[in-house]
Amino acid sequence: MNKAYDELTRTWTRLHHFDHLQAIAAWDQVAMMPPKGSSARADAMAEMDGLMHSLQTDPKLAGLLARAEDEDLDAFERANLREIRRSWRASNALPQALVEARTLAGARCEHAWRSQRPANDWGGFLGNFREVLRLGRETAQRLSDDTGLAPYDALMDQFEPGMTSAEVDRVFGDLQQWLPGLVQQVRERQSFDAVLMPAGPFPKAAQRALSLDAMALLGFDFQAGRLDESAHPCSGGVPEDTRLTTRYAEDDLMQSLMGTVHETGHARYEQNLPREWLGQPVANARSMAIHESQSLSFEMQLGRSRAFATPLAPLLVAHFGAQAAFEPDALHRAMTRVKPGLIRVDADELTYPAHVILRYRIERALIEGRAEAEDIPTLWDESMQSLLGLDTRGNYKDGCLQDVHWTDGSFGYFPCYTLGAMYAAQWFAAMRRQSPDLDEHIARGNFAPVFGWLRDNIWAQASRWSTAELAQRASGEPLNPAHFRRHLEARYLGTGAG
Amino acid sequence: MNKAYDELTRTWTRLHHFDHLQAIAAWDQVAMMPPKGSSARADAMAEMDGLMHSLQTDPKLAGLLARAEDEDLDAFERANLREIRRSWRASNALPQALVEARTLAGARCEHAWRSQRPANDWGGFLGNFREVLRLGRETAQRLSDDTGLAPYDALMDQFEPGMTSAEVDRVFGDLQQWLPGLVQQVRERQSFDAVLMPAGPFPKAAQRALSLDAMALLGFDFQAGRLDESAHPCSGGVPEDTRLTTRYAEDDLMQSLMGTVHETGHARYEQNLPREWLGQPVANARSMAIHESQSLSFEMQLGRSRAFATPLAPLLVAHFGAQAAFEPDALHRAMTRVKPGLIRVDADELTYPAHVILRYRIERALIEGRAEAEDIPTLWDESMQSLLGLDTRGNYKDGCLQDVHWTDGSFGYFPCYTLGAMYAAQWFAAMRRQSPDLDEHIARGNFAPVFGWLRDNIWAQASRWSTAELAQRASGEPLNPAHFRRHLEARYLGTGAG
Repeated sequence: MNKAYDELTRTWTRLHHFDHLQAIAAWDQVAMMPPKGSSARADAMAEMDGLMHSLQTDPKLAGLLARAEDEDLDAFERANLREIRRSWRASNALPQALVEARTLAGARCEHAWRSQRPANDWGGFLGNFREVLRLGRETAQRLSDDTGLAPYDALMDQFEPGMTSAEVDRVFGDLQQWLPGLVQQVRERQSFDAVLMPAGPFPKAAQRALSLDAMALLGFDFQAGRLDESAHPCSGGVPEDTRLTTRYAEDDLMQSLMGTVHETGHARYEQNLPREWLGQPVANARSMAIHESQSLSFEMQLGRSRAFATPLAPLLVAHFGAQAAFEPDALHRAMTRVKPGLIRVDADELTYPAHVILRYRIERALIEGRAEAEDIPTLWDESMQSLLGLDTRGNYKDGCLQDVHWTDGSFGYFPCYTLGAMYAAQWFAAMRRQSPDLDEHIARGNFAPVFGWLRDNIWAQASRWSTAELAQRASGEPLNPAHFRRHLEARYLGTGAG
Repeated sequence: MNKAYDELTRTWTRLHHFDHLQAIAAWDQVAMMPPKGSSARADAMAEMDGLMHSLQTDPKLAGLLARAEDEDLDAFERANLREIRRSWRASNALPQALVEARTLAGARCEHAWRSQRPANDWGGFLGNFREVLRLGRETAQRLSDDTGLAPYDALMDQFEPGMTSAEVDRVFGDLQQWLPGLVQQVRERQSFDAVLMPAGPFPKAAQRALSLDAMALLGFDFQAGRLDESAHPCSGGVPEDTRLTTRYAEDDLMQSLMGTVHETGHARYEQNLPREWLGQPVANARSMAIHESQSLSFEMQLGRSRAFATPLAPLLVAHFGAQAAFEPDALHRAMTRVKPGLIRVDADELTYPAHVILRYRIERALIEGRAEAEDIPTLWDESMQSLLGLDTRGNYKDGCLQDVHWTDGSFGYFPCYTLGAMYAAQWFAAMRRQSPDLDEHIARGNFAPVFGWLRDNIWAQASRWSTAELAQRASGEPLNPAHFRRHLEARYLGTGAG
């Protein structure tokens, strides 16, 4: 009898049920809710947040956690207990007053940002953002005191447990050595390519039908999820019922299509988390970088490969009729076109990491007190110049005002995007070792080697292992950015598969 | 300072927020959720039901209620306290074990019924239903002990507070005297009418567009609600964000259209409950019969009137092109065609009450122990013969197996349908006294006199008064079935407005 452990699992099952209602309400908020519902929805969700917080900060939990450590648990239960403790720690590290102040300041800053960004109003933004940053630093310090990690590392640990800035420096340091040169090399090479862009307009209903076909091709289980529309594509819902959203631009077919492919990667991870563990923290997806490694496995590794263009092309023809741009070679060229730009979410695969490195540098300096809020535009411009050769002076709306993340104080998240891209490259390298003819399978529409590998090595493992152990078990090594470099060189310089 | 009262209102605000999440999850369940989501959803909603039950059965509430009675409350707060007490009483009258046993037996019986009904399997149904009935009787007895009402009245009181079987006997007794004769008279009269039925097919997308236009015509606020699709039309969501559903049959335009008109009546009541009271029980809709009086005001009093056919006809033409059946006179004839049938939900306005009287007779006898489950088919057949002249022997699926209500033990609800029809007739009689040229306004598409009256007299009153007081204030008299009779005679025998 493991009485303390069992009592803990009952509390987390309860939290799981309440999470379900929050997840559906949150999805509804972005995909379904009419505007006048928003205030009542915010009140209802805040009430539930408060309830869940009070369940997770129940003083008796500390004793139960201590007693459970001494109980006779098997390895699986130990892993679950580790995850329960992580969840408990995250809720208990911060005083309620700080959590509420952050929510308030974040909501105010984000709300104002929605109109400040189009107005290029950096000065107005700064007024709210200083408080968000102050609270972000206080949060980092509190989490640091609680975990013993450095302040920025403690923030990152919320999203990517076990990741440190030393490790990020190692892999991003490598990346920033070769990335600007590679971008330049690829740009020169591509300057000789004739690129055919698919010619629209592409009616929304047909794009939606195409998205559904692409999801089906990629193994999405429509008995356990849906596709809807929202202002920003996202993946939500619950593992038993994942809710994807995309958005449609009538003149740009690729935006909704690749958005859907990306979110399908997130969704398949959730749909394939081990059913028998659901309800316990060990059944959750491992981390944000690992989650992103799934969406990027689908969108970048698989979706933009030359091999995938072969089974994708007939879908485009079926929904929009034949055109030269839908020939697999042309399609692949259009999907791998590199062009440095100001906007992260519009960036191609090759220049995207530059946007992330820039944000990592700045947010870490902000949290560590090496920079102040008013320094951001200058720091932004310096990195954009050195990494992508672009000038952003005076253009705040397409510069440091472009992202939502900092408005509500989500510092420490940005590195996950590029860590995810690196992990995805590492997974595909492992897959290719196991299936040397992987691209031939993909070109024939046989994705079983891809999905089988991901299912066995990532999806079915959930949070059974730490991220480092997961990577080691899946690919035989810890995070290794060399795979990402090899993948980019292969795809963009034609030095191998891609 | 009314400390006890204030503490009670805080608890009910909390319940209101949790209700919001349950309401959205319940709407999602019927309108959006894929099949594999159902088990996790049921678990999550059951967890929330349990939480809300424990909040409502907190032992300290009894003392707070007693103390609040002695506090210095104004008339409005007294009304809210009355409704808080009603809500508290409903949750505390039944032991948790009984509630759980009912949920379990109801779910089992309903689940089996879904296949037993098409299989005409009365014997199989009986096996589960006996337990549902036993628990229904125990519930009635417990509620009776708690309230001092007779057992069946105590069940009915859950849906229609203050309504008694003596009162139902009075108004249904009157009705069953003249209804069979009126049906016969109308049938003879209509046998000379040439009825043109709208000729389809009617594509689903066009029906949906028509439904949206009809909702707009009827004043639905699309900033505070939506229309979607489900197997059974319903009205759900929350007052700030009402969620309607309808269903579409490609060969039958009227089913979705009139279903939408009906649900729009429910929705406008919810959308116009007083915003400043929301969160407290006094802001809730008054009762199920009053709710039905709104849907039937929209569907029957307004929607199937000759006057309404004038502004409705152009919408049909706009979506489906002109046809003779869309001429206002023809449309009205089709919408007021009377034909006794076996199925309640397909019944016309005139024969519908017979279906309700029959169910009221049987369920009351069941609860009072004057009949047993196995007697239902015989009792059913006797009433169908005497009220509508139809033979149902051996045809369980279109007879006593047709409704979902009894499968989960919702005894005491059925009378609300016909009470609602009577109230609706009473409201329109009051409106006509105030606006003698009401039908001319309606025919010109000016519904302000209708909506203004309903808003002032019903919607804005919420649960401020008992149902009897509400009726008296709104129409100058308590429930009076004479208005329903006059309405039916006017519409179906052409003796006046209709």
